[in-house]
Amino acid sequence: MKRIAVVGGRGFVGGELLRLLVHHPGVEVVAVTSDTHAGRAVETAHPPLRGSGLRYRRRADLEPVDLVFLAGVHGSTSEILDEVSAFAPKIVDLTADFRIEDAALMRRYYGWDREGGPAFVRGLPELHRKQIVDADRVAVPGCMATCAILSLAPLAQRGLLETAQIDARTGSSGSGASADTSNSHALRSGVLRVFAPFGHRHEAEVTEALGVESSMTVTATPQVRGVQTLARVAVELSERELIRLYQEDYGSEPFVRLLTSPRGAFRYPDPKVLLGSNYCDIAVAVDNRGSALVMASLDNLVKGAAGGAVQCMNLLLGLPETSGLAFPGLHPV
Amino acid sequence: MKRIAVVGGRGFVGGELLRLLVHHPGVEVVAVTSDTHAGRAVETAHPPLRGSGLRYRRRADLEPVDLVFLAGVHGSTSEILDEVSAFAPKIVDLTADFRIEDAALMRRYYGWDREGGPAFVRGLPELHRKQIVDADRVAVPGCMATCAILSLAPLAQRGLLETAQIDARTGSSGSGASADTSNSHALRSGVLRVFAPFGHRHEAEVTEALGVESSMTVTATPQVRGVQTLARVAVELSERELIRLYQEDYGSEPFVRLLTSPRGAFRYPDPKVLLGSNYCDIAVAVDNRGSALVMASLDNLVKGAAGGAVQCMNLLLGLPETSGLAFPGLHPV
Amino acid sequence: MKRIAVVGGRGFVGGELLRLLVHHPGVEVVAVTSDTHAGRAVETAHPPLRGSGLRYRRRADLEPVDLVFLAGVHGSTSEILDEVSAFAPKIVDLTADFRIEDAALMRRYYGWDREGGPAFVRGLPELHRKQIVDADRVAVPGCMATCAILSLAPLAQRGLLETAQIDARTGSSGSGASADTSNSHALRSGVLRVFAPFGHRHEAEVTEALGVESSMTVTATPQVRGVQTLARVAVELSERELIRLYQEDYGSEPFVRLLTSPRGAFRYPDPKVLLGSNYCDIAVAVDNRGSALVMASLDNLVKGAAGGAVQCMNLLLGLPETSGLAFPGLHPV
Amino acid sequence: MKRIAVVGGRGFVGGELLRLLVHHPGVEVVAVTSDTHAGRAVETAHPPLRGSGLRYRRRADLEPVDLVFLAGVHGSTSEILDEVSAFAPKIVDLTADFRIEDAALMRRYYGWDREGGPAFVRGLPELHRKQIVDADRVAVPGCMATCAILSLAPLAQRGLLETAQIDARTGSSGSGASADTSNSHALRSGVLRVFAPFGHRHEAEVTEALGVESSMTVTATPQVRGVQTLARVAVELSERELIRLYQEDYGSEPFVRLLTSPRGAFRYPDPKVLLGSNYCDIAVAVDNRGSALVMASLDNLVKGAAGGAVQCMNLLLGLPETSGLAFPGLHPV
Repeated sequence: MKRIAVVGGRGFVGGELLRLLVHHPGVEVVAVTSDTHAGRAVETAHPPLRGSGLRYRRRADLEPVDLVFLAGVHGSTSEILDEVSAFAPKIVDLTADFRIEDAALMRRYYGWDREGGPAFVRGLPELHRKQIVDADRVAVPGCMATCAILSLAPLAQRGLLETAQIDARTGSSGSGASADTSNSHALRSGVLRVFAPFGHRHEAEVTEALGVESSMTVTATPQVRGVQTLARVAVELSERELIRLYQEDYGSEPFVRLLTSPRGAFRYPDPKVLLGSNYCDIAVAVDNRGSALVMASLDNLVKGAAGGAVQCMNLLLGLPETSGLAFPGLHPV
Repeated sequence: MKRIAVVGGRGFVGGELLRLLVHHPGVEVVAVTSDTHAGRAVETAHPPLRGSGLRYRRRADLEPVDLVFLAGVHGSTSEILDEVSAFAPKIVDLTADFRIEDAALMRRYYGWDREGGPAFVRGLPELHRKQIVDADRVAVPGCMATCAILSLAPLAQRGLLETAQIDARTGSSGSGASADTSNSHALRSGVLRVFAPFGHRHEAEVTEALGVESSMTVTATPQVRGVQTLARVAVELSERELIRLYQEDYGSEPFVRLLTSPRGAFRYPDPKVLLGSNYCDIAVAVDNRGSALVMASLDNLVKGAAGGAVQCMNLLLGLPETSGLAFPGLHPV
Repeated sequence: MKRIAVVGGRGFVGGELLRLLVHHPGVEVVAVTSDTHAGRAVETAHPPLRGSGLRYRRRADLEPVDLVFLAGVHGSTSEILDEVSAFAPKIVDLTADFRIEDAALMRRYYGWDREGGPAFVRGLPELHRKQIVDADRVAVPGCMATCAILSLAPLAQRGLLETAQIDARTGSSGSGASADTSNSHALRSGVLRVFAPFGHRHEAEVTEALGVESSMTVTATPQVRGVQTLARVAVELSERELIRLYQEDYGSEPFVRLLTSPRGAFRYPDPKVLLGSNYCDIAVAVDNRGSALVMASLDNLVKGAAGGAVQCMNLLLGLPETSGLAFPGLHPV
Repeated sequence: MKRIAVVGGRGFVGGELLRLLVHHPGVEVVAVTSDTHAGRAVETAHPPLRGSGLRYRRRADLEPVDLVFLAGVHGSTSEILDEVSAFAPKIVDLTADFRIEDAALMRRYYGWDREGGPAFVRGLPELHRKQIVDADRVAVPGCMATCAILSLAPLAQRGLLETAQIDARTGSSGSGASADTSNSHALRSGVLRVFAPFGHRHEAEVTEALGVESSMTVTATPQVRGVQTLARVAVELSERELIRLYQEDYGSEPFVRLLTSPRGAFRYPDPKVLLGSNYCDIAVAVDNRGSALVMASLDNLVKGAAGGAVQCMNLLLGLPETSGLAFPGLHPV
């Protein structure tokens, strides 16, 4: 059993990580930290942990582990990286701190310079599996970035994508456990809130990962969980050709599913049927005017965060890649 | 045109009041105060006020009006009552400060003593119309209390009610605009959260108004707006007899409707069909074992707060009681 | 008082029409028809009509009126137009039957030929006010078409729009009162269901109204009411220039609002704050790369159907255009 | 590996069963029947089955299995019991057909007589574990009945319960996959719909199981999944005494959890944190007036149906009782 610690276990991503890890057959959670809540039961914040017996401890009380997840607020990883590295040979970072490699992009979108130090590999096994296996440090991309990148990479890698114009939709859990009052239930219920017409930080990740200028419009939708991205692309391929191309890349991927035989109410990717699962569903539709619509959905807390992170952990620790990630989603929910 | 001021116009109740007052044919809103937001456009907090041109001002900048609504946080009225009385001969209070007359009840449920000073009349026109007409100060009851009191008063007034056991359900807007993180969209969506098994403060109002010991279990349900109360009562009356009794009391009330011919999906009181309206819908059902279920629903921000307050204002100022309160609800919504 | 009839008053649009007409100061509803429900109380289907006393009658029992609304299912108007014309000199049609003038478009999107007979004017007062005033027959556009057309017309009319790629989102009430099981609450809650990647019938209306080839991707979102359209357009104008251009067209329109000073959670058009209102809110945002995002929202049952229809009725009958349409929306809801 | 068939696999309960069985380590699903959908992929109706390769077949094409689940509509089991018994030595019935043993109760609530034939054991392991282990036929109780019975049995079995007055709340999935139009998303969203003031069929199960006259008021609430029951009971015990009593009965139960240290927003049983899990959470609160509130929640499709059925299957087949039922719920969702 590999020994695991979660640093910053109070938020939604931390809770989801713990849910996955506690039921993972190959690892053991030996520590969860929260400096503000040290001593308290983890299950108060995360009801699915009821009966786990886990309690928060201070970060200073960490002991050596095989791998640590960093799930604190954005910006925190830079501050504690050295400290944490002393306890753990391998790190999976869920903050935004080391997602962007290009200094100019980092400055443009985040307004600060990325810290130096050892490189982080982008935590997208579908694109970087070999690098992750050999790496010690992995930075998991943002939820909408993961969805958009996975859905457009087959085009970008073949030079079929000039720019990426992404229409992204996100549920409220993406705003985190300490969201402001505009995320109160009364104000956030039932919205179609365009909170970023342009310039959302996940744009930067997409631009860097796909190698083409991207822009992303983000709308907050009324779900708690779930991300969806749509992208209209100019391609002169038939639907069948497009699907073949995606199957080449993803046909043997355990967590990317192509929805190729449209039928029923859930024929296109819909986060509703993915909650709790580690799948990213993708589909394409082609009009008769040289345009295709690429659709993708995932659960932002699983494939878009904690599940993707566990998938990376499995690779980093030599465990089966799908271990602990079999949950197929609930329906209806 | 009567001149009106709203003190404490940042919250949901304040916004609802303004929505009603701005379209009211007999009054003019001359001031809305918020010390923390003085100078800002009211429409930023309350989108239905777009185009009204209203701006917050400091309470110190009030000028004489015919009537003032106090819609600040609970506890604030006691502090500003003298100050405000200098500007307004008539006051409608929407805080909890003067709802309870009995000192012991006040202490038991609120932990503080009610301030002395001139009495406030309970702002329930259906029970106290004459007193309101003659009053200068009215305290509007809490939303769940209004619903429960209206639904049980016909029994209580006839000595048919021994105790009131009320099952109350409430949407998230009842928690106010500055609710804590347990009211974030992610945590509050989809709940059936029993947040008060016993002892909710509205119990005190019901007990005092009905004159019988009452207890109320409150569950937060997933709506934004809406309150519903159910009460199982022991009565040896038929459904027809019960309905006749309610019709005696409410048959000519403009805002209490008895649903007497159960048919269709909305045959019993459901807040879903009352949003924005000033109605309190009531129905009764009788089993064959000496028990009746009294059901009632209303929109907590309208009949349960701002609408009830405007109804009182109409009486206090000699305007038609239904003025400005004709909106019938939206369906479906 | 003008005499009005509603033919096909069982559906959501019919109910909304009745809600507006019953409170309209200049008209009287003299008949509501439903052949299948003749004799039954209208309020069973439409709770906001409680107390109206209205009952459905057969269409054959119509009597002469000043204006009739046709709110039946799509396809029904063609069949009953002659019959209804005998009773009413003026007709406002809410079905899709006469929305499209171009025969080829009609065939491509609907698969049938538009009936001949007298022309219908497109029921968009903001674009065709003069024609409506002089017309006898008006066809109200589809909800998403209304939203998209209003939001892009200022660009199209100035030749600034080459094509319209519209990302449309719609609540469940748009599927009508007799929607199939994929619209059951269990299956429809929480969806982001792309039900039309391309080729939705409202595309045809947008193409015809704007005079440019349009394409529309439609996603079903979890609201009951509300439509939003986003369109990414290539324009070399600054935000200020764009706003000025929209203000030229809409500055004095009573029901189109430009949101020009982005602030707060509802700074961009969000149907959440428009429910029950006749407003179409529009905003623009410009990136620094030659691209603008045009956003618009409305309530599909009001400005997108019944409210737009009443606005047309007001023009057809010489009543004040805004009569009966003052409701500003509810917040929060 | 035990061989399992599911008869009637089109509905929500059938889908949930399949989700659980496909990931169950000790069984293999060899057949799923649906006469109307024979030949079609199961995943069209149940997206979590994507990739399972399962197809519906006709019931006539069943082959011998170790155990069959009957998940068709209520009333269907009586008709096919003999036919199915020929293929399977053990049967777990999820319809209502054999839940009630008392003929008079059956007639009063269902209007028909229970078929004769071999007895079914009530499928509640917490109350009837030994009988289930020895049985061949088990009838799983209704979702609200399960919740109410588990929450009140410790009192009833000690003679502390005189009557059971249950306030039950249920999500929309309880109405099944082929619910009528009153369950459309537009009409069912946001409701607090009292659809059974008294006399719901689950009352009969509670009455029989607890041995006291029970009555149940059922309100449809806006969730898709989830059931909650509240019962006000007259007991002269302290909270501590009550909890001890419940701990005696449930302390070692794997799927009944007592929430005994109220803290945080989810301190009382809330279905929101149980979705997908097989837990029934129970808590008690005591006022100072001789009254206690017993609260319980579960996922109606899991512990209230398919999960309870799998738990019974495990007992019937000699598998570990918790096998395949470890999912702890999602949060937030």
